[in-house]
Amino acid sequence: MHFTSERRLDDGVLERTFTLGDIPGILWTPASPPGPTPLVLLGHPPLGLGAMHPRLAARARHAAADGFASATIELPGSGDRPRLPVLEQGRTELRRAMRAGEAVGDEIVDALTLPLVDRAVPEWQTALDALLSLPGIGGPVGFSGGVISVAIRLAVVEPRLRAAVLFAGSLVPRAIVEEARQVTIPLHVLLQWDDEGNDRAASLDLFDAFGSKEKSLHAHLGGHTGVPPFAGEAAARFFTRHLK
Amino acid sequence: MHFTSERRLDDGVLERTFTLGDIPGILWTPASPPGPTPLVLLGHPPLGLGAMHPRLAARARHAAADGFASATIELPGSGDRPRLPVLEQGRTELRRAMRAGEAVGDEIVDALTLPLVDRAVPEWQTALDALLSLPGIGGPVGFSGGVISVAIRLAVVEPRLRAAVLFAGSLVPRAIVEEARQVTIPLHVLLQWDDEGNDRAASLDLFDAFGSKEKSLHAHLGGHTGVPPFAGEAAARFFTRHLK
Repeated sequence: MHFTSERRLDDGVLERTFTLGDIPGILWTPASPPGPTPLVLLGHPPLGLGAMHPRLAARARHAAADGFASATIELPGSGDRPRLPVLEQGRTELRRAMRAGEAVGDEIVDALTLPLVDRAVPEWQTALDALLSLPGIGGPVGFSGGVISVAIRLAVVEPRLRAAVLFAGSLVPRAIVEEARQVTIPLHVLLQWDDEGNDRAASLDLFDAFGSKEKSLHAHLGGHTGVPPFAGEAAARFFTRHLK
Repeated sequence: MHFTSERRLDDGVLERTFTLGDIPGILWTPASPPGPTPLVLLGHPPLGLGAMHPRLAARARHAAADGFASATIELPGSGDRPRLPVLEQGRTELRRAMRAGEAVGDEIVDALTLPLVDRAVPEWQTALDALLSLPGIGGPVGFSGGVISVAIRLAVVEPRLRAAVLFAGSLVPRAIVEEARQVTIPLHVLLQWDDEGNDRAASLDLFDAFGSKEKSLHAHLGGHTGVPPFAGEAAARFFTRHLK
Protein backbone atom coordinates (compact mmCIF):
# COMPACT_ATOMS: atom_id res chain seq x y z
CA MET A 1 0.00 0.00 0.00
CA HIS A 2 1.52 3.31 -1.13
CA PHE A 3 0.06 6.67 -0.21
CA THR A 4 0.08 8.92 -3.25
CA SER A 5 -1.39 12.16 -1.87
CA GLU A 6 -2.76 13.62 1.31
CA ARG A 7 -4.78 16.69 2.24
CA ARG A 8 -6.79 18.01 5.16
CA LEU A 9 -10.45 18.72 4.46
CA ASP A 10 -11.84 21.88 6.04
CA ASP A 11 -13.26 19.91 8.97
CA GLY A 12 -9.83 18.47 9.73
CA VAL A 13 -10.48 15.04 8.22
CA LEU A 14 -7.30 13.62 6.64
CA GLU A 15 -7.92 12.34 3.11
CA ARG A 16 -5.18 10.14 1.65
CA THR A 17 -5.18 8.51 -1.76
CA PHE A 18 -3.28 5.28 -2.13
CA THR A 19 -2.53 2.47 -4.53
CA LEU A 20 -2.60 -1.16 -3.60
CA GLY A 21 -0.81 -2.86 -6.45
CA ASP A 22 -2.70 -1.37 -9.40
CA ILE A 23 -5.86 -0.59 -7.43
CA PRO A 24 -6.42 3.05 -6.50
CA GLY A 25 -8.11 3.81 -3.20
CA ILE A 26 -8.86 6.55 -0.67
CA LEU A 27 -8.58 6.55 3.11
CA TRP A 28 -10.21 9.13 5.37
CA THR A 29 -9.35 9.43 9.06
CA PRO A 30 -10.86 11.69 11.73
CA ALA A 31 -9.07 14.95 12.58
CA SER A 32 -7.83 13.82 15.98
CA PRO A 33 -8.84 10.25 16.70
CA PRO A 34 -8.74 9.39 20.41
CA GLY A 35 -7.14 6.02 19.59
CA PRO A 36 -7.42 3.22 17.05
CA THR A 37 -10.68 3.78 15.18
CA PRO A 38 -13.25 1.39 13.74
CA LEU A 39 -13.25 1.26 9.95
CA VAL A 40 -16.15 1.62 7.53
CA LEU A 41 -15.58 0.40 3.98
CA LEU A 42 -17.46 2.66 1.59
CA GLY A 43 -19.02 0.77 -1.28
CA HIS A 44 -20.04 2.58 -4.46
CA PRO A 45 -21.51 1.84 -7.89
CA PRO A 46 -19.13 1.09 -10.79
CA LEU A 47 -18.97 4.68 -12.00
CA GLY A 48 -15.35 5.38 -11.11
CA LEU A 49 -13.89 6.86 -7.93
CA GLY A 50 -13.37 10.22 -9.62
CA ALA A 51 -17.06 10.62 -10.42
CA MET A 52 -18.07 9.24 -7.03
CA HIS A 53 -15.59 11.32 -5.01
CA PRO A 54 -17.91 14.12 -3.83
CA ARG A 55 -20.48 11.67 -2.49
CA LEU A 56 -17.85 9.37 -0.98
CA ALA A 57 -16.08 12.28 0.72
CA ALA A 58 -19.39 13.46 2.19
CA ARG A 59 -20.06 9.99 3.60
CA ALA A 60 -16.47 9.79 4.90
CA ARG A 61 -16.84 13.13 6.72
CA HIS A 62 -20.01 11.94 8.42
CA ALA A 63 -18.23 8.73 9.41
CA ALA A 64 -15.27 10.73 10.75
CA ALA A 65 -17.60 12.89 12.82
CA ASP A 66 -18.85 9.67 14.41
CA GLY A 67 -15.28 8.55 15.12
CA PHE A 68 -14.81 6.14 12.21
CA ALA A 69 -12.06 5.88 9.64
CA SER A 70 -13.40 5.04 6.21
CA ALA A 71 -11.87 3.77 3.01
CA THR A 72 -12.76 2.75 -0.49
CA ILE A 73 -11.08 1.20 -3.51
CA GLU A 74 -11.80 1.40 -7.21
CA LEU A 75 -13.95 -1.43 -8.57
CA PRO A 76 -12.45 -3.75 -11.20
CA GLY A 77 -12.92 -2.30 -14.68
CA SER A 78 -14.01 1.13 -13.42
CA GLY A 79 -12.46 4.59 -13.28
CA ASP A 80 -8.81 4.64 -14.32
CA ARG A 81 -8.50 0.84 -14.16
CA PRO A 82 -8.37 -1.11 -17.42
CA ARG A 83 -11.73 -2.07 -18.87
CA LEU A 84 -12.62 -5.75 -18.45
CA PRO A 85 -14.24 -7.25 -21.55
CA VAL A 86 -16.42 -9.59 -19.46
CA LEU A 87 -17.92 -6.64 -17.57
CA GLU A 88 -18.25 -4.47 -20.66
CA GLN A 89 -20.19 -7.27 -22.31
CA GLY A 90 -22.65 -7.48 -19.40
CA ARG A 91 -23.19 -3.71 -19.51
CA THR A 92 -23.70 -3.77 -23.25
CA GLU A 93 -26.33 -6.46 -22.87
CA LEU A 94 -28.07 -4.46 -20.13
CA ARG A 95 -28.15 -1.31 -22.25
CA ARG A 96 -29.46 -3.24 -25.22
CA ALA A 97 -32.28 -4.80 -23.16
CA MET A 98 -33.22 -1.45 -21.65
CA ARG A 99 -33.22 0.30 -25.02
CA ALA A 100 -35.40 -2.47 -26.42
CA GLY A 101 -37.75 -2.06 -23.46
CA GLU A 102 -37.19 -5.70 -22.54
CA ALA A 103 -37.28 -7.10 -19.02
CA VAL A 104 -33.77 -7.56 -17.65
CA GLY A 105 -33.50 -11.34 -17.46
CA ASP A 106 -31.48 -13.52 -15.13
CA GLU A 107 -28.77 -14.07 -17.72
CA ILE A 108 -28.08 -10.37 -18.06
CA VAL A 109 -28.11 -9.83 -14.29
CA ASP A 110 -25.65 -12.68 -13.86
CA ALA A 111 -23.38 -11.46 -16.67
CA LEU A 112 -23.40 -7.96 -15.26
CA THR A 113 -22.80 -8.86 -11.64
CA LEU A 114 -21.11 -12.20 -10.97
CA PRO A 115 -17.79 -11.40 -12.70
CA LEU A 116 -17.67 -8.12 -10.79
CA VAL A 117 -18.34 -9.84 -7.46
CA ASP A 118 -15.74 -12.56 -8.15
CA ARG A 119 -13.06 -9.95 -8.83
CA ALA A 120 -14.02 -7.19 -6.37
CA VAL A 121 -14.40 -9.23 -3.20
CA PRO A 122 -10.79 -10.53 -2.99
CA GLU A 123 -9.61 -6.98 -3.66
CA TRP A 124 -11.63 -5.62 -0.75
CA GLN A 125 -10.10 -8.35 1.42
CA THR A 126 -6.58 -7.38 0.32
CA ALA A 127 -7.41 -3.76 1.06
CA LEU A 128 -8.66 -4.80 4.48
CA ASP A 129 -5.34 -6.55 5.22
CA ALA A 130 -3.46 -3.37 4.33
CA LEU A 131 -5.82 -0.93 6.07
CA LEU A 132 -5.96 -2.85 9.34
CA SER A 133 -2.15 -2.94 9.48
CA LEU A 134 -1.99 0.88 9.52
CA PRO A 135 -1.42 2.63 12.84
CA GLY A 136 -4.64 4.26 14.04
CA ILE A 137 -7.00 1.85 12.26
CA GLY A 138 -8.25 -0.64 14.81
CA GLY A 139 -11.50 -2.13 13.56
CA PRO A 140 -14.07 -3.55 13.93
CA VAL A 141 -15.04 -3.21 10.28
CA GLY A 142 -18.34 -2.29 8.66
CA PHE A 143 -19.33 -2.15 5.00
CA SER A 144 -21.64 0.51 3.66
CA GLY A 145 -23.58 0.80 0.42
CA GLY A 146 -22.34 0.15 -3.08
CA VAL A 147 -23.12 -2.89 -5.19
CA ILE A 148 -25.20 -5.03 -2.83
CA SER A 149 -24.01 -8.30 -4.41
CA VAL A 150 -20.40 -7.40 -3.60
CA ALA A 151 -21.36 -6.63 0.00
CA ILE A 152 -23.25 -9.92 0.35
CA ARG A 153 -20.33 -12.05 -0.89
CA LEU A 154 -17.90 -10.09 1.29
CA ALA A 155 -20.15 -10.60 4.33
CA VAL A 156 -20.15 -14.34 3.67
CA VAL A 157 -16.41 -14.82 3.13
CA GLU A 158 -14.83 -12.15 5.35
CA PRO A 159 -15.05 -12.79 9.10
CA ARG A 160 -13.57 -9.37 9.93
CA LEU A 161 -16.75 -7.74 8.60
CA ARG A 162 -19.01 -7.16 11.61
CA ALA A 163 -21.98 -5.13 10.35
CA ALA A 164 -23.25 -3.81 7.03
CA VAL A 165 -25.49 -1.08 5.71
CA LEU A 166 -26.83 -2.34 2.40
CA PHE A 167 -28.63 -0.46 -0.35
CA ALA A 168 -31.19 -2.66 -2.09
CA GLY A 169 -30.83 -0.68 -5.27
CA SER A 170 -29.41 -2.99 -7.89
CA LEU A 171 -30.30 -6.23 -9.60
CA VAL A 172 -29.13 -9.27 -7.66
CA PRO A 173 -28.33 -12.66 -9.25
CA ARG A 174 -30.27 -15.63 -7.89
CA ALA A 175 -26.99 -17.22 -6.82
CA ILE A 176 -26.23 -14.21 -4.63
CA VAL A 177 -29.71 -14.34 -3.07
CA GLU A 178 -28.84 -17.91 -2.06
CA GLU A 179 -25.53 -16.70 -0.59
CA ALA A 180 -27.48 -14.11 1.40
CA ARG A 181 -28.90 -16.95 3.51
CA GLN A 182 -25.38 -17.49 4.87
CA VAL A 183 -24.98 -13.88 6.00
CA THR A 184 -25.16 -13.67 9.79
CA ILE A 185 -23.85 -10.19 10.68
CA PRO A 186 -26.26 -7.41 11.70
CA LEU A 187 -27.73 -5.65 8.67
CA HIS A 188 -29.36 -2.30 8.09
CA VAL A 189 -30.97 -2.45 4.64
CA LEU A 190 -32.09 0.65 2.77
CA LEU A 191 -34.72 0.45 0.04
CA GLN A 192 -36.08 3.26 -2.12
CA TRP A 193 -39.77 2.39 -2.47
CA ASP A 194 -40.11 3.79 -6.00
CA ASP A 195 -36.65 2.89 -7.31
CA GLU A 196 -37.03 3.01 -11.07
CA GLY A 197 -34.13 0.62 -11.68
CA ASN A 198 -35.07 -1.95 -9.09
CA ASP A 199 -37.69 -4.60 -8.48
CA ARG A 200 -39.36 -3.94 -5.13
CA ALA A 201 -40.63 -7.49 -4.65
CA ALA A 202 -37.17 -8.90 -5.42
CA SER A 203 -35.63 -6.55 -2.85
CA LEU A 204 -38.14 -7.65 -0.20
CA ASP A 205 -37.38 -11.29 -1.02
CA LEU A 206 -33.67 -10.58 -0.68
CA PHE A 207 -34.23 -8.95 2.73
CA ASP A 208 -36.21 -12.00 3.75
CA ALA A 209 -33.39 -14.31 2.62
CA PHE A 210 -30.65 -12.85 4.83
CA GLY A 211 -29.71 -15.26 7.59
CA SER A 212 -28.87 -12.52 10.09
CA LYS A 213 -30.68 -12.53 13.43
CA GLU A 214 -30.54 -8.74 13.53
CA LYS A 215 -31.68 -7.22 10.28
CA SER A 216 -33.90 -4.27 9.60
CA LEU A 217 -35.33 -2.83 6.41
CA HIS A 218 -35.74 0.92 6.00
CA ALA A 219 -37.86 1.83 3.01
CA HIS A 220 -38.29 5.45 2.03
CA LEU A 221 -40.54 7.02 -0.54
CA GLY A 222 -38.80 8.12 -3.70
CA GLY A 223 -36.53 7.02 -6.51
CA HIS A 224 -33.03 5.54 -6.62
CA THR A 225 -31.18 8.71 -5.62
CA GLY A 226 -33.84 10.04 -3.24
CA VAL A 227 -32.57 8.59 0.05
CA PRO A 228 -33.53 11.24 2.64
CA PRO A 229 -30.81 12.73 4.90
CA PHE A 230 -32.38 11.26 8.06
CA ALA A 231 -31.90 7.77 6.56
CA GLY A 232 -28.15 8.38 6.47
CA GLU A 233 -28.22 9.43 10.12
CA ALA A 234 -30.09 6.25 11.08
CA ALA A 235 -27.50 4.16 9.21
CA ALA A 236 -24.74 5.98 11.10
CA ARG A 237 -26.39 5.12 14.42
CA PHE A 238 -26.50 1.47 13.31
CA PHE A 239 -22.71 1.51 12.86
CA THR A 240 -22.25 3.27 16.19
CA ARG A 241 -24.28 0.49 17.87
CA HIS A 242 -22.30 -2.30 16.24
CA LEU A 243 -18.76 -1.05 15.71
CA LYS A 244 -18.10 0.83 18.94
CA MET B 1 -62.06 17.01 31.60
CA HIS B 2 -61.58 16.22 35.25
CA PHE B 3 -58.25 15.21 36.72
CA THR B 4 -58.74 12.32 39.14
CA SER B 5 -55.20 11.70 40.39
CA GLU B 6 -51.70 12.99 39.97
CA ARG B 7 -48.26 11.74 40.88
CA ARG B 8 -44.63 12.44 40.02
CA LEU B 9 -42.71 9.56 38.48
CA ASP B 10 -39.12 9.16 39.69
CA ASP B 11 -37.76 11.07 36.69
CA GLY B 12 -40.00 14.03 37.52
CA VAL B 13 -42.61 13.37 34.84
CA LEU B 14 -46.08 14.38 36.03
CA GLU B 15 -48.66 11.62 35.46
CA ARG B 16 -52.29 12.67 35.78
CA THR B 17 -55.33 10.47 35.29
CA PHE B 18 -58.49 12.13 34.07
CA THR B 19 -61.99 11.44 32.91
CA LEU B 20 -63.56 13.01 29.88
CA GLY B 21 -67.26 12.30 30.31
CA ASP B 22 -67.15 8.56 30.95
CA ILE B 23 -63.82 8.01 29.19
CA PRO B 24 -60.77 7.48 31.42
CA GLY B 25 -57.42 8.81 30.25
CA ILE B 26 -53.89 9.63 31.32
CA LEU B 27 -51.75 12.70 30.64
CA TRP B 28 -47.98 12.81 31.12
CA THR B 29 -46.04 16.08 31.06
CA PRO B 30 -42.26 16.66 31.27
CA ALA B 31 -40.76 17.56 34.66
CA SER B 32 -40.06 21.17 33.81
CA PRO B 33 -41.21 22.01 30.31
CA PRO B 34 -39.54 25.14 28.89
CA GLY B 35 -42.88 26.31 27.48
CA PRO B 36 -45.95 24.89 25.74
CA THR B 37 -45.02 21.39 24.59
CA PRO B 38 -45.95 19.36 21.53
CA LEU B 39 -48.32 16.49 22.27
CA VAL B 40 -48.04 12.84 21.31
CA LEU B 41 -51.22 10.76 21.49
CA LEU B 42 -50.30 7.26 22.62
CA GLY B 43 -52.36 4.60 20.87
CA HIS B 44 -52.64 1.10 22.32
CA PRO B 45 -54.38 -2.20 21.62
CA PRO B 46 -57.84 -2.82 23.14
CA LEU B 47 -56.49 -4.56 26.25
CA GLY B 48 -57.46 -1.91 28.80
CA LEU B 49 -55.43 1.02 30.11
CA GLY B 50 -54.70 -0.82 33.33
CA ALA B 51 -52.99 -3.71 31.60
CA MET B 52 -51.26 -1.36 29.16
CA HIS B 53 -50.10 1.13 31.80
CA PRO B 54 -46.49 -0.05 32.27
CA ARG B 55 -45.77 0.08 28.53
CA LEU B 56 -47.64 3.37 28.07
CA ALA B 57 -45.81 4.99 30.98
CA ALA B 58 -42.47 3.85 29.54
CA ARG B 59 -43.34 5.41 26.18
CA ALA B 60 -44.57 8.58 27.93
CA ARG B 61 -41.28 8.93 29.84
CA HIS B 62 -39.28 8.65 26.63
CA ALA B 63 -41.55 11.26 25.05
CA ALA B 64 -41.11 13.54 28.08
CA ALA B 65 -37.33 13.21 27.84
CA ASP B 66 -37.64 14.51 24.28
CA GLY B 67 -39.77 17.44 25.45
CA PHE B 68 -43.21 16.09 24.55
CA ALA B 69 -46.37 15.81 26.58
CA SER B 70 -48.24 12.60 25.89
CA ALA B 71 -51.73 11.37 26.55
CA THR B 72 -53.97 8.42 26.00
CA ILE B 73 -57.61 7.49 26.49
CA GLU B 74 -59.33 4.16 27.04
CA LEU B 75 -60.74 2.58 23.90
CA PRO B 76 -64.51 2.02 23.62
CA GLY B 77 -65.49 -1.29 25.21
CA SER B 78 -62.09 -1.82 26.87
CA GLY B 79 -60.75 -1.70 30.44
CA ASP B 80 -63.30 -0.31 32.91
CA ARG B 81 -65.61 0.93 30.18
CA PRO B 82 -68.84 -1.01 29.51
CA ARG B 83 -68.48 -3.85 27.02
CA LEU B 84 -69.97 -3.14 23.60
CA PRO B 85 -71.90 -6.08 22.14
CA VAL B 86 -70.88 -5.19 18.58
CA LEU B 87 -67.18 -5.36 19.49
CA GLU B 88 -67.57 -8.48 21.65
CA GLN B 89 -69.22 -10.19 18.70
CA GLY B 90 -66.30 -9.38 16.40
CA ARG B 91 -63.82 -10.70 18.96
CA THR B 92 -65.84 -13.87 19.44
CA GLU B 93 -65.83 -14.47 15.70
CA LEU B 94 -62.06 -13.90 15.55
CA ARG B 95 -61.40 -16.35 18.39
CA ARG B 96 -63.67 -18.93 16.77
CA ALA B 97 -61.88 -18.62 13.41
CA MET B 98 -58.45 -18.84 15.05
CA ARG B 99 -59.42 -21.88 17.14
CA ALA B 100 -60.78 -23.54 14.01
CA GLY B 101 -57.52 -22.76 12.21
CA GLU B 102 -59.45 -20.82 9.57
CA ALA B 103 -58.12 -17.82 7.67
CA VAL B 104 -59.42 -14.57 9.17
CA GLY B 105 -61.70 -13.31 6.42
CA ASP B 106 -62.66 -9.78 5.46
CA GLU B 107 -65.99 -10.02 7.27
CA ILE B 108 -64.35 -10.80 10.59
CA VAL B 109 -61.73 -8.06 10.13
CA ASP B 110 -64.49 -5.57 9.35
CA ALA B 111 -66.64 -6.70 12.30
CA LEU B 112 -63.69 -6.48 14.64
CA THR B 113 -62.36 -3.14 13.51
CA LEU B 114 -64.84 -0.80 11.85
CA PRO B 115 -67.17 -0.36 14.88
CA LEU B 116 -64.11 0.36 17.03
CA VAL B 117 -62.78 2.95 14.56
CA ASP B 118 -66.19 4.62 14.23
CA ARG B 119 -66.43 5.03 18.01
CA ALA B 120 -62.81 5.67 18.97
CA VAL B 121 -61.91 8.38 16.49
CA PRO B 122 -64.47 11.00 17.64
CA GLU B 123 -63.37 10.30 21.22
CA TRP B 124 -59.73 10.98 20.38
CA GLN B 125 -60.87 14.23 18.75
CA THR B 126 -62.80 15.23 21.88
CA ALA B 127 -59.75 14.39 23.97
CA LEU B 128 -57.65 16.54 21.66
CA ASP B 129 -60.00 19.50 22.19
CA ALA B 130 -59.63 19.14 25.95
CA LEU B 131 -55.89 18.46 25.98
CA LEU B 132 -54.99 21.37 23.70
CA SER B 133 -56.96 23.75 25.94
CA LEU B 134 -54.74 22.91 28.92
CA PRO B 135 -51.99 25.36 29.88
CA GLY B 136 -48.61 23.97 28.89
CA ILE B 137 -49.88 21.83 26.00
CA GLY B 138 -49.16 23.68 22.79
CA GLY B 139 -49.08 21.18 19.95
CA PRO B 140 -48.35 20.26 17.21
CA VAL B 141 -49.84 16.82 17.70
CA GLY B 142 -48.53 13.40 16.76
CA PHE B 143 -50.13 9.97 17.06
CA SER B 144 -48.12 6.91 17.98
CA GLY B 145 -48.88 3.19 17.73
CA GLY B 146 -52.04 1.42 18.77
CA VAL B 147 -54.72 0.12 16.44
CA ILE B 148 -53.48 1.24 13.03
CA SER B 149 -57.01 1.54 11.61
CA VAL B 150 -57.88 4.07 14.33
CA ALA B 151 -54.74 6.06 13.53
CA ILE B 152 -55.49 6.04 9.79
CA ARG B 153 -59.06 7.35 10.21
CA LEU B 154 -57.85 9.96 12.71
CA ALA B 155 -55.14 11.09 10.29
CA VAL B 156 -57.78 11.52 7.57
CA VAL B 157 -60.38 13.45 9.59
CA GLU B 158 -58.26 15.40 12.11
CA PRO B 159 -56.26 18.30 10.66
CA ARG B 160 -54.51 18.94 13.99
CA LEU B 161 -52.64 15.65 13.59
CA ARG B 162 -49.30 16.47 11.98
CA ALA B 163 -47.28 13.25 12.00
CA ALA B 164 -47.83 9.63 12.97
CA VAL B 165 -45.80 6.60 13.97
CA LEU B 166 -47.85 3.58 12.93
CA PHE B 167 -47.45 -0.06 13.87
CA ALA B 168 -48.46 -2.36 11.03
CA GLY B 169 -49.40 -5.05 13.46
CA SER B 170 -53.10 -5.65 13.14
CA LEU B 171 -55.60 -6.68 10.53
CA VAL B 172 -56.85 -3.74 8.48
CA PRO B 173 -60.25 -3.63 6.75
CA ARG B 174 -60.18 -2.99 3.00
CA ALA B 175 -62.22 0.16 3.53
CA ILE B 176 -59.49 1.55 5.80
CA VAL B 177 -56.78 0.71 3.24
CA GLU B 178 -58.77 2.89 0.84
CA GLU B 179 -58.92 5.67 3.44
CA ALA B 180 -55.13 5.39 3.78
CA ARG B 181 -54.81 6.88 0.29
CA GLN B 182 -56.18 10.14 1.73
CA VAL B 183 -53.54 10.35 4.47
CA THR B 184 -51.03 13.09 3.67
CA ILE B 185 -49.11 13.67 6.93
CA PRO B 186 -45.55 12.32 7.36
CA LEU B 187 -45.58 8.68 8.47
CA HIS B 188 -43.04 6.42 10.15
CA VAL B 189 -44.37 2.87 9.83
CA LEU B 190 -43.06 0.00 11.94
CA LEU B 191 -43.46 -3.60 10.79
CA GLN B 192 -42.38 -6.77 12.57
CA TRP B 193 -41.15 -8.99 9.75
CA ASP B 194 -42.28 -12.25 11.40
CA ASP B 195 -45.43 -10.97 13.11
CA GLU B 196 -47.44 -14.10 13.80
CA GLY B 197 -50.76 -12.23 13.86
CA ASN B 198 -50.23 -10.19 10.77
CA ASP B 199 -50.07 -10.61 7.01
CA ARG B 200 -46.76 -9.19 5.76
CA ALA B 201 -47.91 -8.69 2.17
CA ALA B 202 -51.04 -6.87 3.37
CA SER B 203 -48.89 -4.59 5.53
CA LEU B 204 -46.62 -3.76 2.59
CA ASP B 205 -49.69 -3.04 0.44
CA LEU B 206 -51.01 -0.75 3.18
CA PHE B 207 -47.69 1.11 3.32
CA ASP B 208 -47.84 1.49 -0.45
CA ALA B 209 -51.39 2.86 -0.23
CA PHE B 210 -50.64 5.81 2.06
CA GLY B 211 -50.90 9.10 0.19
CA SER B 212 -48.20 10.82 2.24
CA LYS B 213 -45.24 12.32 0.39
CA GLU B 214 -42.97 11.51 3.32
CA LYS B 215 -43.43 7.98 4.51
CA SER B 216 -40.90 5.39 5.57
CA LEU B 217 -41.22 1.75 6.50
CA HIS B 218 -39.02 0.24 9.21
CA ALA B 219 -39.18 -3.55 9.27
CA HIS B 220 -37.39 -5.45 12.01
CA LEU B 221 -36.83 -9.13 12.42
CA GLY B 222 -39.00 -10.79 15.01
CA GLY B 223 -42.56 -11.33 16.17
CA HIS B 224 -45.35 -8.97 17.18
CA THR B 225 -43.84 -7.88 20.50
CA GLY B 226 -40.20 -7.98 19.38
CA VAL B 227 -39.75 -4.35 18.31
CA PRO B 228 -36.10 -3.59 19.17
CA PRO B 229 -35.28 -0.62 21.45
CA PHE B 230 -33.41 1.24 18.69
CA ALA B 231 -36.64 1.23 16.65
CA GLY B 232 -38.31 3.25 19.40
CA GLU B 233 -35.44 5.72 19.35
CA ALA B 234 -35.76 6.14 15.59
CA ALA B 235 -39.50 6.77 15.97
CA ALA B 236 -38.74 9.40 18.63
CA ARG B 237 -36.38 11.17 16.24
CA PHE B 238 -39.16 11.17 13.63
CA PHE B 239 -41.42 13.08 16.06
CA THR B 240 -38.60 15.45 16.94
CA ARG B 241 -38.17 16.23 13.24
CA HIS B 242 -41.87 16.85 12.67
CA LEU B 243 -43.32 18.23 15.90
CA LYS B 244 -40.61 20.63 17.01
